[in-house]
Amino acid sequence: MKAVIVNPKKQGVEVKDVDIKEPLGKRQVRVKSIFTGICGTDRGIVNAKITFTYPPNGYNFLILGHEELGIVEEVGEDVTTLKKGDYVVPVVRRGCGVCLNCKIGRQDFCETGNFVEAGIRGKHGFMREEFVDDELWLVKVPDELKEIAVLTEPLSNVVKAIDELLFVQRRMVWTCEDSTFECRNAFVVGSGPIGTFFSLILTTLGFNVYIINKRDPSPIEEYIAKRLGAEFINSKTETEEKLPNADLIVDTSGVPSAFIPLMNKMKPNSALILFGTVEGEKYEITSDLITAIVEKNIIVMGSVNASKKDFQGALNYLSIWRSRYLDILEKMITSKVPVDKAPEVLISKPKGEIKTVIQW
Amino acid sequence: MKAVIVNPKKQGVEVKDVDIKEPLGKRQVRVKSIFTGICGTDRGIVNAKITFTYPPNGYNFLILGHEELGIVEEVGEDVTTLKKGDYVVPVVRRGCGVCLNCKIGRQDFCETGNFVEAGIRGKHGFMREEFVDDELWLVKVPDELKEIAVLTEPLSNVVKAIDELLFVQRRMVWTCEDSTFECRNAFVVGSGPIGTFFSLILTTLGFNVYIINKRDPSPIEEYIAKRLGAEFINSKTETEEKLPNADLIVDTSGVPSAFIPLMNKMKPNSALILFGTVEGEKYEITSDLITAIVEKNIIVMGSVNASKKDFQGALNYLSIWRSRYLDILEKMITSKVPVDKAPEVLISKPKGEIKTVIQW
Amino acid sequence: MKAVIVNPKKQGVEVKDVDIKEPLGKRQVRVKSIFTGICGTDRGIVNAKITFTYPPNGYNFLILGHEELGIVEEVGEDVTTLKKGDYVVPVVRRGCGVCLNCKIGRQDFCETGNFVEAGIRGKHGFMREEFVDDELWLVKVPDELKEIAVLTEPLSNVVKAIDELLFVQRRMVWTCEDSTFECRNAFVVGSGPIGTFFSLILTTLGFNVYIINKRDPSPIEEYIAKRLGAEFINSKTETEEKLPNADLIVDTSGVPSAFIPLMNKMKPNSALILFGTVEGEKYEITSDLITAIVEKNIIVMGSVNASKKDFQGALNYLSIWRSRYLDILEKMITSKVPVDKAPEVLISKPKGEIKTVIQW
Amino acid sequence: MKAVIVNPKKQGVEVKDVDIKEPLGKRQVRVKSIFTGICGTDRGIVNAKITFTYPPNGYNFLILGHEELGIVEEVGEDVTTLKKGDYVVPVVRRGCGVCLNCKIGRQDFCETGNFVEAGIRGKHGFMREEFVDDELWLVKVPDELKEIAVLTEPLSNVVKAIDELLFVQRRMVWTCEDSTFECRNAFVVGSGPIGTFFSLILTTLGFNVYIINKRDPSPIEEYIAKRLGAEFINSKTETEEKLPNADLIVDTSGVPSAFIPLMNKMKPNSALILFGTVEGEKYEITSDLITAIVEKNIIVMGSVNASKKDFQGALNYLSIWRSRYLDILEKMITSKVPVDKAPEVLISKPKGEIKTVIQW
Repeated sequence: MKAVIVNPKKQGVEVKDVDIKEPLGKRQVRVKSIFTGICGTDRGIVNAKITFTYPPNGYNFLILGHEELGIVEEVGEDVTTLKKGDYVVPVVRRGCGVCLNCKIGRQDFCETGNFVEAGIRGKHGFMREEFVDDELWLVKVPDELKEIAVLTEPLSNVVKAIDELLFVQRRMVWTCEDSTFECRNAFVVGSGPIGTFFSLILTTLGFNVYIINKRDPSPIEEYIAKRLGAEFINSKTETEEKLPNADLIVDTSGVPSAFIPLMNKMKPNSALILFGTVEGEKYEITSDLITAIVEKNIIVMGSVNASKKDFQGALNYLSIWRSRYLDILEKMITSKVPVDKAPEVLISKPKGEIKTVIQW
Repeated sequence: MKAVIVNPKKQGVEVKDVDIKEPLGKRQVRVKSIFTGICGTDRGIVNAKITFTYPPNGYNFLILGHEELGIVEEVGEDVTTLKKGDYVVPVVRRGCGVCLNCKIGRQDFCETGNFVEAGIRGKHGFMREEFVDDELWLVKVPDELKEIAVLTEPLSNVVKAIDELLFVQRRMVWTCEDSTFECRNAFVVGSGPIGTFFSLILTTLGFNVYIINKRDPSPIEEYIAKRLGAEFINSKTETEEKLPNADLIVDTSGVPSAFIPLMNKMKPNSALILFGTVEGEKYEITSDLITAIVEKNIIVMGSVNASKKDFQGALNYLSIWRSRYLDILEKMITSKVPVDKAPEVLISKPKGEIKTVIQW
Repeated sequence: MKAVIVNPKKQGVEVKDVDIKEPLGKRQVRVKSIFTGICGTDRGIVNAKITFTYPPNGYNFLILGHEELGIVEEVGEDVTTLKKGDYVVPVVRRGCGVCLNCKIGRQDFCETGNFVEAGIRGKHGFMREEFVDDELWLVKVPDELKEIAVLTEPLSNVVKAIDELLFVQRRMVWTCEDSTFECRNAFVVGSGPIGTFFSLILTTLGFNVYIINKRDPSPIEEYIAKRLGAEFINSKTETEEKLPNADLIVDTSGVPSAFIPLMNKMKPNSALILFGTVEGEKYEITSDLITAIVEKNIIVMGSVNASKKDFQGALNYLSIWRSRYLDILEKMITSKVPVDKAPEVLISKPKGEIKTVIQW
Repeated sequence: MKAVIVNPKKQGVEVKDVDIKEPLGKRQVRVKSIFTGICGTDRGIVNAKITFTYPPNGYNFLILGHEELGIVEEVGEDVTTLKKGDYVVPVVRRGCGVCLNCKIGRQDFCETGNFVEAGIRGKHGFMREEFVDDELWLVKVPDELKEIAVLTEPLSNVVKAIDELLFVQRRMVWTCEDSTFECRNAFVVGSGPIGTFFSLILTTLGFNVYIINKRDPSPIEEYIAKRLGAEFINSKTETEEKLPNADLIVDTSGVPSAFIPLMNKMKPNSALILFGTVEGEKYEITSDLITAIVEKNIIVMGSVNASKKDFQGALNYLSIWRSRYLDILEKMITSKVPVDKAPEVLISKPKGEIKTVIQW
């Protein structure tokens, strides 16, 4: 079958016929690919900028792809929750089996680091015509979401971060005098797919959202901000006075110079979610910043990956937004390309891209 | 304007022209009624079976109605979050202003009992052509939900109960080996609107749902159970062996003989949510039941009312189900009657009713 | 060595020389007994009233004893946290190894029921001159507690219940306007060792404690109540008016007629902890009680057993009370008997007993 | 009466006779000072390095002192919980009365910043012969702690931080396979009184503690580390290899260069508590550090101040340590000086000081 493969040690990507025998276990499911999304991690692997990638045991190549939507083709004899024709999204990270969080299905909190991730490290990904996977790690997708459910995996990571935030902030009263979050201001730094998901969830939860980037919005970004009732701030040209104080900052950029200057807007009891990662940046912090974090009981929280429950949560959000913001979701998928064009869009990002997906 | 009124001391209900002057405060909103739902509490008041009802100060009558959907007609000069034409649902209970939970907008946990509830105690309800209310206690409804948002208020109470359950059950690991609730069995006792909402939410969260009643399902109930992948059990005719062990029982009946016999199915770490209330029932419990609660770390949790955040949560669930189960929501509103027919449907429940609403 | 043994199928108990070979594993510890406490469960086994008891695999008898204090005699070569001469208390329940709670060391929440408990089911207890156990399940005891640390095990179960209560009650604001529990009234039903531990912990946490029993206090009980600033109420002779409303009721009796009538005193948001178990009692409840649980958001919480962290918590409380209430702790150990007298005090409870311990 | 006063606008401190009339309200208590502790904040005020200090309304001076132990001299007629002769510690911060956290007695999470703090901003402190205060904000001290309870206030702030940490870390499984914290390593940066309290609490909770400073330990510090079974690491002379990976870092220094280099030791799911504040320091961070926080789900948590419940928690810890580590507590109070010597020890720190207190 056709697959998009890389050699983890080298730059480059190709579409190739691979011959992988995957017998169907009793509690396993054979899935045909429908869409596979492309993200920065895929491009990082293709361009040999991500060092932690490696092929599965016994292979000298890695099949890419972790943002998948597929359809069930065949089920093993003991499978009870899925049937031929069901849409599914596979969980990406599989636990180490040793640490306590992996033992309870929370491999997003794996403590040993000995997990594998489909299409990233130690496990073939989903950029191929079909694959076999355990029933346990396939998330059933409601039929009506089939056109947008390729967004489930990236969204799941945002759901996990927000879920954790809301638990952590129960350390005190963080809700408003009417029990909602409507008095709370959130800055979302970055307006790519992850930033957009944060803006969507935070709006849905009642926050006043400010989308911050170092440039003017693209037409789609402007459209999304307007539809959400959010404000798009160009941090290069607009003065800080346009921004209120913040109860929450979410950084999706990874760039310290993008979010640290905003921290002087942080209110008592506020939180900063760190979600983005980049390389090679530096920034000088002062003890005044540390003092502010202390005196204001501020929490800074890194968040990575997601568990199966977060995939289900993501599907619930997609259903909410299918009712409320279907136009936004549709605009987020900026292009669908056939697999033969995959190398092209994997090597460099198409102009105006929010999310590019491969259509199988 | 026309209003549906009762004299809290007597049986009976009438539609009458009332002359209530409600000047519009700066942070207030004038709302025109669109739909008002009818529930057991309304009928209890009309049939003088509910003793805690009383009119607002200075009135000898009470306007009924607490399940409301309206449209904004006029806003006070300092109103910022609503505008003419917005759909809104008002919060029912208003806090005592004294206890700590009311001070933080959680009047559903009022500790003094000195709250008022629109259409129930001490505050006129919404079964009238229009009313004025504080911006703070009006929940904005997404336009696409206008046909079903009259369900928001009853659903909000279910959302609160589930929200609390999920927090409380973090006392240990209650999620399954894949981090979801897919290994968990929930019994929902009762198949009225509240029971149906519990079944919908629990299905959405991944539970295996068993709907239990003392009779066969009506055609609509059968339809709903099937659509949800739930099983409807007639506890009179079907043997207990059809039921697995339970991780959660939700009672919406209030009848001890309906749910206590099921408690011998409760698994370690399970929970029983009590949501229903009736009068005049008795049941004998044994020390064996107490022993089981102790030895199995079981929690029994009464839950009443909802705060504004739960109304927002309810709207989110309505949006999910509008994508996924719109047919169910539409079937739940079994009839829409004009206000002049309100007394008739308030005195006795129409046959086959799940939810009857007044259309203004 | 001498051991106190039972035949789980029959009434009776004897002190016998048993020949159990226990080689010392690398991560194991040989412990010499100092004190072993006696509780209702021991007497239930001896009098063949407890049906769930059974011997370890391959044995036709069970060594009794689960409330142990010992001293380390010898350590395996890989033991790092204990050394000869250290005082230790062993954890009683050992997990099933299969359910998620057991996998993370919370066997007190075992879901399969396939745990073993030393001296109770499937594992020899500690009423013997010495035993070998895993380092992992031995809790180090500070030297200064050696005279009272035999109380650790029963206290650990109370610590677990309170720990869970405090988490669960974060579902709303349960603390007072000064952030403490000083405005909260707790009824403790029962004045045996478990009731006394609840009274001690609740006093330490700031609650106003009412100790309730169906009789007048013994002189020691009167002393303890006074020392704690608690009130002892004879529910047979004193009218209910002496009691305020309750924020918390803890039942240590297991007798429904002892705690259910008190439930009409329960305030909104209050909790009832069920801790006691008996046989053969019945009580009629009404739907009014169910209504009160619903309308007041009441939680009823069964609690059993404890994990190692609770043993450590118990030792911390013992250290607090050694500073503050050493007299109470010393009075709680009402007699120390040599092992040869064990059968006598195991068959029937000595008069005036709070806690009887075997001294080795 | 004699009081230690400052003019918040100027450097300097003096002992003066002040004439403050404090009539005793019905729910108030007159307290005679026994001991008042001195900390860095007091010295910061005296040396005019703390800018946020200001006198109470209507005064041109501020009485210093917030670490107080006093004895009740006289109680108002409605006081119920205190009597003449009781030992008390007053809460330092008093809420704004407006924000939700202050409304529920959690002024340590004040959101407006409009609180006052005795001896620091807007309210006279306790370095005076006597003062009148509300019963509500006086914490009763068990008699047996009178020699060490002057440590309650600084300890309360540590208790709050740890309490919050333990709640926040319930976001995943942070306990070990035996349910304790015995597999967890904590670095405590700084060995002053706050660092020592963190080391004491963390040891009591089962953590393996590493005390880190930029110099060799003083004899007292060496003694304390040994008694706690902790390791004292001189970060200037000892190589990083001596340190294991960290599950928790607590910084009590406020100096970025002291704790940021240690962050490369942080394990997945670990936490960094920021507690210290200084001025004028700078440090360059890299995007690699941000990436590590993200990829490892790390939490950084600022923590300041304490509520009344934390003062009670502090007294409980003092009782534990009075049983277990009384020698440490006694060594921590390195000198007791009469009030006339207060200016001297307020202007500069005595050599070898851990805690200096004024004896009244």
